[in-house]
Amino acid sequence: MEFSATQLAAVLKGTIEGDANALVHDYAKIEEGKPGTLSFLSNPKYENYLYETEASIVLVNNDFQPTKPVKATLIRVPNAYLALATLLQLAEQHKPGKSGIDPTAHIAASASVGKNCYIGPFVYIGENAVIGDNTQIYSHCAINDNAKIGSNNILYNGVVVYHECVIGNNCIFHAGAIVGADGFGFAKNPDGSYFKMPQNGNVIVEDNVEIGANTCIDRGSMGPTIVHSGVKLDNQIQIGHNAEIGHNTVMAGCSAVAGSAKVGNDCTFAGFVGIAGHIQIANNTMAGAFTGITKSVKNPGQVYHGPTALPAMQNKKAFSVYRNLPDFRKEFYELQKEVAALKEQLKQKD
Amino acid sequence: MEFSATQLAAVLKGTIEGDANALVHDYAKIEEGKPGTLSFLSNPKYENYLYETEASIVLVNNDFQPTKPVKATLIRVPNAYLALATLLQLAEQHKPGKSGIDPTAHIAASASVGKNCYIGPFVYIGENAVIGDNTQIYSHCAINDNAKIGSNNILYNGVVVYHECVIGNNCIFHAGAIVGADGFGFAKNPDGSYFKMPQNGNVIVEDNVEIGANTCIDRGSMGPTIVHSGVKLDNQIQIGHNAEIGHNTVMAGCSAVAGSAKVGNDCTFAGFVGIAGHIQIANNTMAGAFTGITKSVKNPGQVYHGPTALPAMQNKKAFSVYRNLPDFRKEFYELQKEVAALKEQLKQKD
Amino acid sequence: MEFSATQLAAVLKGTIEGDANALVHDYAKIEEGKPGTLSFLSNPKYENYLYETEASIVLVNNDFQPTKPVKATLIRVPNAYLALATLLQLAEQHKPGKSGIDPTAHIAASASVGKNCYIGPFVYIGENAVIGDNTQIYSHCAINDNAKIGSNNILYNGVVVYHECVIGNNCIFHAGAIVGADGFGFAKNPDGSYFKMPQNGNVIVEDNVEIGANTCIDRGSMGPTIVHSGVKLDNQIQIGHNAEIGHNTVMAGCSAVAGSAKVGNDCTFAGFVGIAGHIQIANNTMAGAFTGITKSVKNPGQVYHGPTALPAMQNKKAFSVYRNLPDFRKEFYELQKEVAALKEQLKQKD
Repeated sequence: MEFSATQLAAVLKGTIEGDANALVHDYAKIEEGKPGTLSFLSNPKYENYLYETEASIVLVNNDFQPTKPVKATLIRVPNAYLALATLLQLAEQHKPGKSGIDPTAHIAASASVGKNCYIGPFVYIGENAVIGDNTQIYSHCAINDNAKIGSNNILYNGVVVYHECVIGNNCIFHAGAIVGADGFGFAKNPDGSYFKMPQNGNVIVEDNVEIGANTCIDRGSMGPTIVHSGVKLDNQIQIGHNAEIGHNTVMAGCSAVAGSAKVGNDCTFAGFVGIAGHIQIANNTMAGAFTGITKSVKNPGQVYHGPTALPAMQNKKAFSVYRNLPDFRKEFYELQKEVAALKEQLKQKD
Repeated sequence: MEFSATQLAAVLKGTIEGDANALVHDYAKIEEGKPGTLSFLSNPKYENYLYETEASIVLVNNDFQPTKPVKATLIRVPNAYLALATLLQLAEQHKPGKSGIDPTAHIAASASVGKNCYIGPFVYIGENAVIGDNTQIYSHCAINDNAKIGSNNILYNGVVVYHECVIGNNCIFHAGAIVGADGFGFAKNPDGSYFKMPQNGNVIVEDNVEIGANTCIDRGSMGPTIVHSGVKLDNQIQIGHNAEIGHNTVMAGCSAVAGSAKVGNDCTFAGFVGIAGHIQIANNTMAGAFTGITKSVKNPGQVYHGPTALPAMQNKKAFSVYRNLPDFRKEFYELQKEVAALKEQLKQKD
Repeated sequence: MEFSATQLAAVLKGTIEGDANALVHDYAKIEEGKPGTLSFLSNPKYENYLYETEASIVLVNNDFQPTKPVKATLIRVPNAYLALATLLQLAEQHKPGKSGIDPTAHIAASASVGKNCYIGPFVYIGENAVIGDNTQIYSHCAINDNAKIGSNNILYNGVVVYHECVIGNNCIFHAGAIVGADGFGFAKNPDGSYFKMPQNGNVIVEDNVEIGANTCIDRGSMGPTIVHSGVKLDNQIQIGHNAEIGHNTVMAGCSAVAGSAKVGNDCTFAGFVGIAGHIQIANNTMAGAFTGITKSVKNPGQVYHGPTALPAMQNKKAFSVYRNLPDFRKEFYELQKEVAALKEQLKQKD
């Protein structure tokens, strides 16, 4: 299918600069744009590509001012990245979704499956499990006894939802995600061996959550582990028992939140961020890669960095001294010598 | 079901302080306790909750001395956390376990399955595999050729046990755990490409081991990778080929042990701990989060911390200087200036 | 089966030192060698074991000079490790591979499966998927719609290949590996919630690649994520959308490459290495464990280390000061005092 700049601008409520009849039939990154493709410019770092791209139409932010001539037709919108996302999502909605219940799926007699669902081959749905309408469950997923899954969810291949766990609506779970495995709790016996602390809680995942491939969210020991609405977790993440992740918080791959930690709303974590157990993280906290936070963060909006976390600016300044520590040490030795020489001079004066 | 303080104290051999007829029918965290719930106080950090909790009964350690009046009935026991675990486990044992062999399970004719097992839907059991008595294997597990699994184990959904691997008794494997994938061994060819080192060993997991969701334990290249009895591994852990993990060692999520490393008994690792290959870690070693140990640890009972590990106390002291390095640097510049001024003064004296 | 030193030397084009009739029927690590086993010595660290080993034959490098008497028969070869790998691989090739299509496998009518493939129990192969010749797909794998998998590949249990992804020839995917889950891309809405950026690209994995257990490679948002030929990825690795991993690059477990990063050829990363998004890493770059690289690396052949990466030698020197910072601080205080004393002395002289 082909679209003109006029058509796209109408959908996006944008304004056209250049040929309103330019046509596109595909998307491309700006540095790889070819005639007939649509691209976007959001990050100013990529501005130079705009002047070279072969893309026919480029979405730009309203406030963008080109500094050189541009060959492509521009469509100005409030947020170019969001506008592209809107278009891509429209395109996706035209793709036919999967539907129907595969005859190989194992659905317990006491389970219930809503309308217009897709239940793929070799899916296991246990006793009393409930699946809402329009939910797609790909091959090899296991929805264990008494689990409740809402409407309009997608569970890709091999997702496991343990017994009693509850999932809201409009969520996406990528392949291999595991919801509700036992939390890691043991009591030490007098002989040094460990006694398993039963994990009788569950996991509650609210609406509009996306969970990455092979990410794990453990069930609570007592009461739930809670992932609030709008949370986005990347791949390979670990969420411990009874943790709570606040609304619209976003975590990049390989991060981990230990048991009973409460992470606030609207936080943003880079990869390999670790949050210690039993602490509280204020709303809007940010953390750079390889940051380990072991104490509660009380004031919202702060940025942390470092395996033993410091405020990011403090860490940056400390690190800038660290990297030159050997020179600092040398300067110190020289100063020591100078002082010794002065001492000696002074002694000779006596 | 409801229990009185008298009944619980009898099971736990504890002593009652308060109303011996107090009744409970559920568990709750002390800060969330409601009438009719049982709670416990173990970590002194939570003591304040004791004076506010609505829980009807609270388990406390024998040596605990309240500093304010307590409304709840107390049951004194040697270890409140362990006592709660005992009660929770008793409760779990009353839940009916899964049993029976699902007709969709694929069990090779040459495989053997013990008495009273649960083999869930879509389970694959390969040639000559052996499954002991009372073992529960949930949906989508794959037990490959010649694998041997003992008695009283639970393998949750989608666990993979590669060919030839051996698992003891009373173990729990959480969903997505993978036992026996090839170790990571390659020899460099003269042209820069890599030649795969065949991995002909296996994995031996001894008794009473718990393995977390999506944790991987690679097979040995020659000989086994060994996880000794009583080991508890959290989620998302990676154990390399021919590594050995000592009895009752406990590792939190996202940690990794590289190939041929030998970790001693009774070690405790926080999250994101990395142990380099071919080294030995003494018994009772502890490591904080984001600790990378690259040299053998010879003396037992030491605590390490830092991405390049130092003894934890040394790291703490070094870090306390690190965080203020910019101030230190400034003080140094001032001292340099003072020394220069002294030098000048002294010169003028000559 | 038993082999003599003469037979092995012929296969390996090596030269014998000692009893040419020595026989072996199994492999063993040099420190665990028993009569009748073959071992090898490559790492000089293990030389002492050579003088004590009970192994009957030991492969050594041509240039190795024993410093004590050796009981075992030696076979000298250019590269002992590679020679052992060759022998082990020959042994493996004699093992019968799996073959045939299990009747429980779900293969879409529009999919095509090549000659001499193994398609295990409960495998799902979607619409228009293509599987080349001699490829082995173990139980519970999911090959989704329009995916293309070449020849001579092995996919162990539970591997997931998302729709549209393309895999070359001679690759190995270990259990739980996930190829083509959505990249992690969201645009922030004005209300703080996130809008999902559709991920319409795919993953291309070229030839001779090995992917570890539970490793994830995300699909591109537009265009592909590319893993070039000869790449070896260990377990628990995360590769972000539109990343590119160069030929023969090797990454150890728990590492991660963020979106749109381009890693060069022949790089070697230890465990827990993180590469930030949108940067370029030159060929032959090396990184130690817990290294976070956030800026492009332009010159090939450099070695980095540290959570905020520095050239490894610089990091080593800085760290050697760091570990003794408290002493440095103390020395500084002493020098401060000395300078103050000098100042005082000088003042009294006036």
